[in-house]
Amino acid sequence: MPKIVDHSERRRELIEASWEVIANQGIEGITLRNVAKAAGCTTGRISHYFSGREQLLSSALRQAHKNAAVRMMKIANGKLDAKQRLIRVSYEGLPLDKSRLREWKVWIVFWAAAASSQNLAAENAARYKDWQDLIARLLTECGTASQHLDSRLYELMSIVDGLGIRLTLTPSPKNRELARKTIADWVGRLDLSEVNH
Amino acid sequence: MPKIVDHSERRRELIEASWEVIANQGIEGITLRNVAKAAGCTTGRISHYFSGREQLLSSALRQAHKNAAVRMMKIANGKLDAKQRLIRVSYEGLPLDKSRLREWKVWIVFWAAAASSQNLAAENAARYKDWQDLIARLLTECGTASQHLDSRLYELMSIVDGLGIRLTLTPSPKNRELARKTIADWVGRLDLSEVNH
Repeated sequence: MPKIVDHSERRRELIEASWEVIANQGIEGITLRNVAKAAGCTTGRISHYFSGREQLLSSALRQAHKNAAVRMMKIANGKLDAKQRLIRVSYEGLPLDKSRLREWKVWIVFWAAAASSQNLAAENAARYKDWQDLIARLLTECGTASQHLDSRLYELMSIVDGLGIRLTLTPSPKNRELARKTIADWVGRLDLSEVNH
Repeated sequence: MPKIVDHSERRRELIEASWEVIANQGIEGITLRNVAKAAGCTTGRISHYFSGREQLLSSALRQAHKNAAVRMMKIANGKLDAKQRLIRVSYEGLPLDKSRLREWKVWIVFWAAAASSQNLAAENAARYKDWQDLIARLLTECGTASQHLDSRLYELMSIVDGLGIRLTLTPSPKNRELARKTIADWVGRLDLSEVNH
């Protein structure tokens, strides 16, 4: 019987391994050899799926992004009221548990690489675009007037990113609690600013 | 006549060179050899001032932080009204010109390294502490009630960090304009939330 290889499964395993390497060793750890070691395979197998280090890195980001997007979409299309959905979607973008902390390490490492690579910066901009569209939709559902939309959008996305950095570098229960409160508080004040400002 | 060496000046030159290397080549570029090349000196001279790569990296961060802190303090202690000082201090923390863009690349690269190094994460936490104290002081001068202080502090610092990442990776005039507007807008709504919330 011929050996059946599930290529998408193998690809996923290699991406998971590269997340582990990034989270534990930082961007400098991302060598084909280290990823092969973490995945328990040969470097030859990695070369079969990825053209090189930069492609492996952008695939790792793209997959982390897809995973987060799926979780966010599920909440965004759920039955909670608009503000609750906006709060939950924002939490979903924060490193509030172990797997999202790993995701965040991937993102920060990726940003550092993107700061000196136009290709990776473009990849990052595409990721932001999707997230931005989703948050804009939810803000509108919360009643944000169109003339305030850009400014609120920038504010909330920046808050999530800024909180995410802090939580990734100092992942304490107190910081997680403050992060949740900051988001809920901000969303709670949305009406206030729409009516008065 | 004996040769007079200004050690603090030499140290500063090496740190400037390491900023250049980080901004252009990312964290992986930070080798003693590359920094020596950028500074136009031997690796031996670098070893004379820094015990190794990690010390060079944390010195580069510390100096970038000090420079930013000096600029911020000057504004914070100036004659503008409290809200204007809060806005200007926040702008000072954003990559709105070439030299602050270089500063930001140093910070993002440093965060990536700190994500897998407890020493560097502690270094980063110390940097945040100073900045946090300054912003807390200005928020109080703007009339923020003590029961809201933590939450507003987290919000504003996160906004600055989140905007900074976006501007570093996509440094367009439009993004700089939106970043300025986002900060001014947020500070403009401070009273509103104190009174009603």
